[in-house]
Amino acid sequence: MTNSQDKSTSFVLFGALGDLSLRKLMPAWFYLERSGLLDDSLRILGVARQDITREQFQQKIIDALNLYVPDEYLDADVYNKLIERINYCCCDLNNHDDYQKLEQSLNGWNKPISYYLAIPPDLFEVVCDGLHNIQILTKNSRIVVEKPIGYSLESSRDIHDKLLKHFNESQIYRIDHYLGKETVQNLIALRFANSLFSSQWNSKSIEYIEITAAESVGIEGRWDYFDGVGQMRDMVQSHILQLLCLIAMEPPSRLNDQSIRNEKVKVLQALQPLNENNISKSFIRAQYSDGQISGAIKPGYLNEEGAISKSKTETFVAIKAEIANWRWSGTPFYIRTGKRMAGKITNIAIHFKSDAHFIFDQDQKSSTGNSLIISLHPTEGISLQVFTKRHGVNEGMRLRSDLMSLDFIKSQKLLKIPSGYQRLLLDILLGNQSLFLCKEEIELAWEWCDNAYKIWQKSLQPLYSYPAGSNGPNESKTLLQQNGHNWHDE
Amino acid sequence: MTNSQDKSTSFVLFGALGDLSLRKLMPAWFYLERSGLLDDSLRILGVARQDITREQFQQKIIDALNLYVPDEYLDADVYNKLIERINYCCCDLNNHDDYQKLEQSLNGWNKPISYYLAIPPDLFEVVCDGLHNIQILTKNSRIVVEKPIGYSLESSRDIHDKLLKHFNESQIYRIDHYLGKETVQNLIALRFANSLFSSQWNSKSIEYIEITAAESVGIEGRWDYFDGVGQMRDMVQSHILQLLCLIAMEPPSRLNDQSIRNEKVKVLQALQPLNENNISKSFIRAQYSDGQISGAIKPGYLNEEGAISKSKTETFVAIKAEIANWRWSGTPFYIRTGKRMAGKITNIAIHFKSDAHFIFDQDQKSSTGNSLIISLHPTEGISLQVFTKRHGVNEGMRLRSDLMSLDFIKSQKLLKIPSGYQRLLLDILLGNQSLFLCKEEIELAWEWCDNAYKIWQKSLQPLYSYPAGSNGPNESKTLLQQNGHNWHDE
Repeated sequence: MTNSQDKSTSFVLFGALGDLSLRKLMPAWFYLERSGLLDDSLRILGVARQDITREQFQQKIIDALNLYVPDEYLDADVYNKLIERINYCCCDLNNHDDYQKLEQSLNGWNKPISYYLAIPPDLFEVVCDGLHNIQILTKNSRIVVEKPIGYSLESSRDIHDKLLKHFNESQIYRIDHYLGKETVQNLIALRFANSLFSSQWNSKSIEYIEITAAESVGIEGRWDYFDGVGQMRDMVQSHILQLLCLIAMEPPSRLNDQSIRNEKVKVLQALQPLNENNISKSFIRAQYSDGQISGAIKPGYLNEEGAISKSKTETFVAIKAEIANWRWSGTPFYIRTGKRMAGKITNIAIHFKSDAHFIFDQDQKSSTGNSLIISLHPTEGISLQVFTKRHGVNEGMRLRSDLMSLDFIKSQKLLKIPSGYQRLLLDILLGNQSLFLCKEEIELAWEWCDNAYKIWQKSLQPLYSYPAGSNGPNESKTLLQQNGHNWHDE
Repeated sequence: MTNSQDKSTSFVLFGALGDLSLRKLMPAWFYLERSGLLDDSLRILGVARQDITREQFQQKIIDALNLYVPDEYLDADVYNKLIERINYCCCDLNNHDDYQKLEQSLNGWNKPISYYLAIPPDLFEVVCDGLHNIQILTKNSRIVVEKPIGYSLESSRDIHDKLLKHFNESQIYRIDHYLGKETVQNLIALRFANSLFSSQWNSKSIEYIEITAAESVGIEGRWDYFDGVGQMRDMVQSHILQLLCLIAMEPPSRLNDQSIRNEKVKVLQALQPLNENNISKSFIRAQYSDGQISGAIKPGYLNEEGAISKSKTETFVAIKAEIANWRWSGTPFYIRTGKRMAGKITNIAIHFKSDAHFIFDQDQKSSTGNSLIISLHPTEGISLQVFTKRHGVNEGMRLRSDLMSLDFIKSQKLLKIPSGYQRLLLDILLGNQSLFLCKEEIELAWEWCDNAYKIWQKSLQPLYSYPAGSNGPNESKTLLQQNGHNWHDE
């Protein structure tokens, strides 16, 4: 996948003073430095509009590290080594002349250079054109972008068109930071290195699958932005459909970029579009109302600061998705994600079918068999729910449900480092695209989400309500119960 | 299975001052009393030759409880309640007249009465006849016997003939105390309440199975007895073949005595006899030599007190057993049991086949897939060995082997009570035979073991040697390695 020729040791970060840069990317560089994984020749150029010196920029990075890296990992030797690599270029991206400053700053830097656009999408075109105009781009240059890549199929195509003017697909690194998470990557190992699971990974053996991404945070002062987006575009179109792809895809014949992307694209192609007949039983949108989290009163979505009282934007969706292919037809994939829920919880639950014949007390017969829970947050690990004999000489052969558990962090005695950016930054430098999205994936995901919205509005479906701090609206339970299923944590 | 009419509340214990009675049965009664599981009307009569009073017998029981029940469980109120139920009858079992004393002792006791023969098998006949002669037996009387039930097919048939003179099969309770153990009973729940396992419980999915029962003790002053028996008769014929039956049997249609016994019998019928062609690759016998356990020097078998230097009795066997039926043909069942090994370990390992295609680094391809380890000792629980991604941004997709574990004792917050006798005693009183052996099981097991011995001797196979404190002879490893397999703990 990679050869040394392709290795990039020059990294340009547009939007270097923004939230993504200071909160996520700088700590990620720090951890990589701390682990000794950065090439000595690596140099990083921060680009932003603010007119500050290199020293001031370095100080801002140190301030950010102090804020976002836990004390026990901080180490002055490490961050001094890191900031020595870092330079700063003040640049108004809309000003043609400023690109000359950029060129000067990069004079003598090793090629290929990686450009990370931690800036709003409406600046992508002018930056790409600006880089082109100073003739700094080569066929190995890399351009890195992150969601939101548009807010619809059309707008994402527009963004891709702009990138593709100066870069081909193999140069574009589209980030979904979920894919950088160890436990998300572990889905590949779990599915394809464990015959016990792989042999039963289909609709004959699996009754249903849940994907949950609950957030306890609300809108965090971004009401305006969020109201134009909603939970479906914010979470489902990106992170959750990526999880769904990794869970549902056919085994790739090899473990390389192209094989995995191809298999993910095939899942999205087989994802059944919601339609007017099934929308009311397949797609629940809801908004949080006033409520409490851990005793603290939280305002409802329409009572948040800056809210427009008529907004119908959803802060919660629950979806019954179906994949119309040979492996999955008949096995629903239930998706649930929302803001201001009881806790921050991300997990995937695989419910295997029970055996047809049951020889234990009939009142103990459960509608499903074993369940495999893959937890991404707050723990990272897997649990297999099994049925065992209840101990006790007078318990006869009464069953009990129990958990076989594996906590990846404890088992591997790891530091708990939450972000997935380290791996992604390293892969950009190494030229490994397997954890990045291709154009087709993003567009298929948009197409499916756009259609759901359109049908929802056209058929005048209700917007439900749930109190802040709850597990979502009751309708989210009904969505499963109509098929005899239940969210595993309810 | 049981109706109240059948309930027994009168229990006669022959050999009441013997080791089994004082070490195992009295503590078991104590735990049952402590749990409030004994019927108020239950009465127990101890029978032995020693001429002591009831009070002296009660004192012996209290002494035994002090010795064999951990302090934290002991409770004077409980053992006082227990010994109030207990009476004593001095009786020379070979003396006809003494049975009159027994009759008087049992005068007025509720029928049916359960008779537990904790005495040598050569006394079974005289006791059964004695009970018959005093006309105390009814069609609901129960007779309880325990291994050794003979030392060969012929001698076990002889014992059964004697029991069957006065009792029919539904009255005879043949104990294998392994079946009283919670974790052994849990095999039924694990196999038949968990579709994830049940659907793959066959030779298509399972590469091989191991059953290990290693003991660290030696002959414990019983050289004379043991030398006439050997490890095969002592452990394999009884406990280990029972475990094998529970692991290998077809799913019973119901969970009752008859269904389970039938299925176990079918396994023993399908157990392939060892023959002259395969004996050297299927049956290893060995004897321990001088060695060390935890730094303490232990004499070899032939150097134990009272040893005859020419003995060829095995203290260790390793067997490759094959079950010639539709479910298991092609999947070896490896058995390993011995005395004076490194530690006391009892477990069963199920090795699933790996997938044919492997997409990870080829040097990580393992010959087997997932393994399920069912531990009976020293822990009680199950572990599933799975392959996960090695965490770390520079680990790519390297695999690691990890364990999902469930400890029954911890999970159910149980007292650790090692014996299986509580459940068995209770089942005798309740008239539930499902955890007891039928005649046919015992005879089929003897037939298979007798044949193995015969072929071994006839074909002049070597007796191997292993140092005390080791995992057995190297030949036990070779037994598996010739098929590309390994004991999971080596």
